[in-house]
Formats: sequence, structure tokens, C-alpha cells
Amino acid sequence: MIKNELPALQAPYKLDAGEGLRYGFGSHLATFIARPQELGQAASGTILTGARGARFPNHRHGATHEALFVVEGAISLTLDNKDHLLTPGDYVNIPPGTTHGYEFLDHRGKLLSWTFGGNAADAYAVLGKPYAGAVYPESNEPINWSSLDSSVDTEVLAADRPAPHDPWTPKLTTAPNGKIPFVLAAGEGERMIAGDQVYTILGNQGHSDGVFISLLTEGPIGTPIPRHLHQKVTELFYCLNGELEMFVSDGFVTLSPGDFLHVPPRTPHAFQLKKHDTRFLGFITPGDFEPFFRYLCVPFDGYRYPLVPPPFRFDRVIQHLSELDLTILERPGGPPPQAPQS
Amino acid sequence: MIKNELPALQAPYKLDAGEGLRYGFGSHLATFIARPQELGQAASGTILTGARGARFPNHRHGATHEALFVVEGAISLTLDNKDHLLTPGDYVNIPPGTTHGYEFLDHRGKLLSWTFGGNAADAYAVLGKPYAGAVYPESNEPINWSSLDSSVDTEVLAADRPAPHDPWTPKLTTAPNGKIPFVLAAGEGERMIAGDQVYTILGNQGHSDGVFISLLTEGPIGTPIPRHLHQKVTELFYCLNGELEMFVSDGFVTLSPGDFLHVPPRTPHAFQLKKHDTRFLGFITPGDFEPFFRYLCVPFDGYRYPLVPPPFRFDRVIQHLSELDLTILERPGGPPPQAPQS
Repeated sequence: MIKNELPALQAPYKLDAGEGLRYGFGSHLATFIARPQELGQAASGTILTGARGARFPNHRHGATHEALFVVEGAISLTLDNKDHLLTPGDYVNIPPGTTHGYEFLDHRGKLLSWTFGGNAADAYAVLGKPYAGAVYPESNEPINWSSLDSSVDTEVLAADRPAPHDPWTPKLTTAPNGKIPFVLAAGEGERMIAGDQVYTILGNQGHSDGVFISLLTEGPIGTPIPRHLHQKVTELFYCLNGELEMFVSDGFVTLSPGDFLHVPPRTPHAFQLKKHDTRFLGFITPGDFEPFFRYLCVPFDGYRYPLVPPPFRFDRVIQHLSELDLTILERPGGPPPQAPQS
Repeated sequence: MIKNELPALQAPYKLDAGEGLRYGFGSHLATFIARPQELGQAASGTILTGARGARFPNHRHGATHEALFVVEGAISLTLDNKDHLLTPGDYVNIPPGTTHGYEFLDHRGKLLSWTFGGNAADAYAVLGKPYAGAVYPESNEPINWSSLDSSVDTEVLAADRPAPHDPWTPKLTTAPNGKIPFVLAAGEGERMIAGDQVYTILGNQGHSDGVFISLLTEGPIGTPIPRHLHQKVTELFYCLNGELEMFVSDGFVTLSPGDFLHVPPRTPHAFQLKKHDTRFLGFITPGDFEPFFRYLCVPFDGYRYPLVPPPFRFDRVIQHLSELDLTILERPGGPPPQAPQS
């Protein structure tokens, strides 16, 4: 396990909140938490923060599929010419070709951006320069948007500030089907439950043509899930609340809010929620691992993990093990798997 | 030091995030983190969470001064008949007699409420019953607002849902003077800097006639402040981001986001920021300790702690020590105090 540095190709590593490769541009700070060099594929993870009024003008990516998750702050997002007021927990799906841009409306804006399939994230290194601080610079230095040439998959459409927005477009409470842009409101999405943990699918495989899925996991202090590994699946964990202890590779790491963990293929791993109301966001690629969660979970109408959980149906995962990129490395702990009930 | 239980009068104690005395009412959860029994004065701290649509109808307190800080979620707040869209980091000053009410607009609403001078917080125990869970119940059980009789300083004015609101009233970027209601936007307020730490006064002593002050402290990984104690001042620390290590009484505790620490009078204490971008909120009573921060700090125009801090002026605190309720128990660490420069 490697901590607080970006290591060689497809090695597991953890970054504490604020760590990563930092580039400042204007009063923005972009912190790379994962790049193709680490991930072994055309994908990048970036934390974007900035001062009130810092903005990324309307732009689009030709090949890059982007997803945004709001970690902090109030943010104005233009998506396909509609303005949305983003608040923490909101999720944005941005397929290639979608016009989008944002502006931080307070001093606390913080976005987690994952990009797949193109090099759009290189824009931050082209626009900026390495920055030693862990919070954004309060700089008035202008940003040279025209430095983004065709070598970067980020085409800026209009660097000028747009006219004042129309009323905010309502955010969705159910994601639409297919590879289309959308803004899903905080806490919304397809919700499922496995034992005492609630899983919310923010992006399903259909939203990105199978490239990735994104899902929120939350629950109470619990027992560890069994150690397992995948042959092809990469998991990208970002802790939002509480604390989780991860077994990875050959030891344990603790993830607190803002901490990131890369679990490449063929890496034994497991997790255990260690605090009340622990929540983490996982991006998983490729997206065809999605059925695992549908076997593990049952549909859930609630929004928060309940006081009395339904039966844990790991038995259904076992039944479908041959279909899944999943090697279980130990007998599941806790109570024995319950007999199928339906 | 006592952990995760509410102890005897004026003892120091720490509560992990989610701990405290929990009462459920409807789909609200009120978690008492401090009561008069612990604080030795008419004051209470409560964490309020609830489902989307959970609301506390318009009400007012006759003697209780309340202050709200938004920890999570999007929340509609009515204050003196004006509607505000609250987002994390916003601060609300609610002097006695002010009509106010709120509704959680998403599934993540979380308010920190401090009340002083009256028993308004008893309302949660009257309205609710003890609840074992650490997140709110998703319950449709109606709330009997009329159970709040004159024994509780919370007068519900109209339990019905109000008409759809007018456009949101803008939140302030500068707090007004005096004991009047206001909503201060996230990151705003009177900002000062001491070494590498930024202090933002959210509520000054004039906002509550000297009863309390509230301030945000944030900074990078740093060195400990010197151990000290106060004869009459109580400090109420709530961690928002990152991690701080507190020395209190006779040992160390670590505060992560959501953790609470009560430091009663005559208790030796100190703190050290242990992670990037650590932030905590302090309520301090009585409010006449405010000049300490004005001696410790210099005015600051920025919003985030800078890469290169200005000189640390602990020497000015030493100069004014005789005016302050402050006993310093060790020589300040780090570089020696710098000579006055102006």
C-alpha cells in the first residue's frame, strides 16, 4: 500500500484529504487524485475547489464522459443550456458532447470529477501551474482559456460570463435512462439495501454505455464485508462522512471524509463501516459489475438506513457467483447467510 | 475526560458524531449534545436532522436566544417572514421574539442549534420520544405541536404548512450590528487571522447582548496552541472538517467531523490542527471573551488560510493578559513571539 503519493501503474494507494497533484489556475485549485498513469486506462479523478465567483466557462468534451459529485458548497451548473443550483450530494452525468460549465457561488465549492475515455482532465494542468497549498489560491490572475488547444479534449465555447440565469431548473429525483445528461438531487437515485447498508446508484451502466457505475454506500457501524478481489474491475472509493476501515492488498487503511482509495484489479480488499452514518462514494469501472449490487441488495423505498434492517441476502450473490467478476477470499462474517426466502 | 455520555455538571466530555441523547418526532431526529445539566447554565446544544419535507413550523421563543449553523443539506428557513435557502456553512442569529421555522428540502438536512437563556430546546423532548437510531426515523407519524404548552419556551404560531414562498431572500455577506435576526452566508462574517489560522466571527457579543460569541476556526496542519484555562468561560467545540487534536483536562482527544467537545471553566485545554483544511465551530459563553480574538488576530480580507501566513501576534495577547479571562499554562510553542511591528 502506498500513501499520499501517486504511484506506479495499477498499484493500490490511498490519499488523505487534500493530497494529490495540485494545480492552481486563477482562484481554482484542481487536485488530481488519479490519472491514466495510475489507473492504467483513460480515466482521471480530480477535486475541484475555488473561490466564490471562480468559474469554468461553458465547454464540452468530444470523447470524455464526465461525472460530477458535489462534495461542498453551492454551485451554479449549466448543463445543456439549463441552469441548476447544485448543493452537496448532487450528481451530474455529462456524456461526451454535452455543453456544461459551472461557477462557485460561495467560498466552499468542492466538486469531485471523474472522467473516462478521453483526456479532458489534462485541461487543469494546461491551464494551471503546480501549487503548494492545500486550499485554493485567492488569486485575481486571469485564466488563459485559449491555451486549451485541440490536444486536450476540452473545447471552451464561450469564456465570457453568461447572462444572469433564468430560474433554476429543478433537479431530478429519478435518473432517466440512457447516455444522456442529467442532474440528480442529493440523496436521490435508485436505492437498494443489503443488510444494514443502503446503496444508491447514481450512475448506472446505461448512463455511460457500460464504462462505469457510481454509487453511494451508507450505513451504521457494522461488521466487515468478506475479503474479495476482482480480475478486471477497478474500484475508486471516496469517503464522504464518518469513517471506514478498508482492508486492501496486505493491510488496513482508514478512510475519513475526503480520503481516497484506489483498488486496482486483482487486489484483495474489504471494508467495514466504523462510525455512525458513514457514507462513501464508489466509482467502479467497467460498469458491467452492476449486477453484483442487484444480487446483493433488495430494492429500498427509504432514504436512510433503517433502525431494523432486512435480512442480508449474500446467499443470492453466491448463487450468481459464476456470472460475476468476483473472487471471495474468506467466508462471510457475521451471522450465517440466511436461506432464500423468495 | 468522559466520552460518549452526558456526564455530571460542568465536566469536560467528548461526544463522537451521532452520539448524544436522541429524540425522534415525526421524521425529525433531535440529538442533545449538551443541556443545562451538563453546562451549568440555561443553554443547550442540539443536532437537528430530518427527512425531506420534515419541518418545524413558525414559532418563537420568549426568552431563548437561538443560533443555527447549517452542517448539511438544503433547508428552507423562514426568519421574520422572509424565506431563505440555507446551504452548509450558513449561520442564523435568532434573538428572543423572532418568528422562525424551517423545512428540510433534501434528505440530508442537519442543523446545529445552540440556545441560551431559556428552555426552548426542551421542546424536542416534549414533542418526541427517545430513539435508538443514529439517523432520523422515516416515519409518517404526525407531530402533536399543541403538546408544547407554556412550560416550554417555544410558542408554535401556525402548524400549517405556509404558502409557497416568495423568491429567496439574499443571505448577508456582512453581519449587521446588534441583537437582531440575520442570516449570514457560508464563509462570510468578520474574518481575522492569527498565524496560519483564519478566524471568522459569525456571532459577536453584540448579537446576543454579550451572552455568547460563535466563531469558525480553520487552518492547515499546524502546531499546538499553548495550554491554557479560563475561570468563567465555557467553550463548545464542534468539528466540521479535517481533524483536530485537543488536549483537555488530563489527556488528548481527537475531534473528527461531527464530534463535539465541552470545555467547562477551569479546565486546561489546547488544540492542534492535524489535517489539511481543518475547520471547527466554537460557541463561547459568556461573550465578553471576544477581545481575546481581536488581540490574537489581525483583520483578514481573504476567505481561506493563505499559503504564506502573516506574523503570529501572540505577543499582543500577552500585553493584554490582565484584561482577559485567560491563564496560560505553558510557554507558547513554535517560533518565539515576534516583536510588535505597529
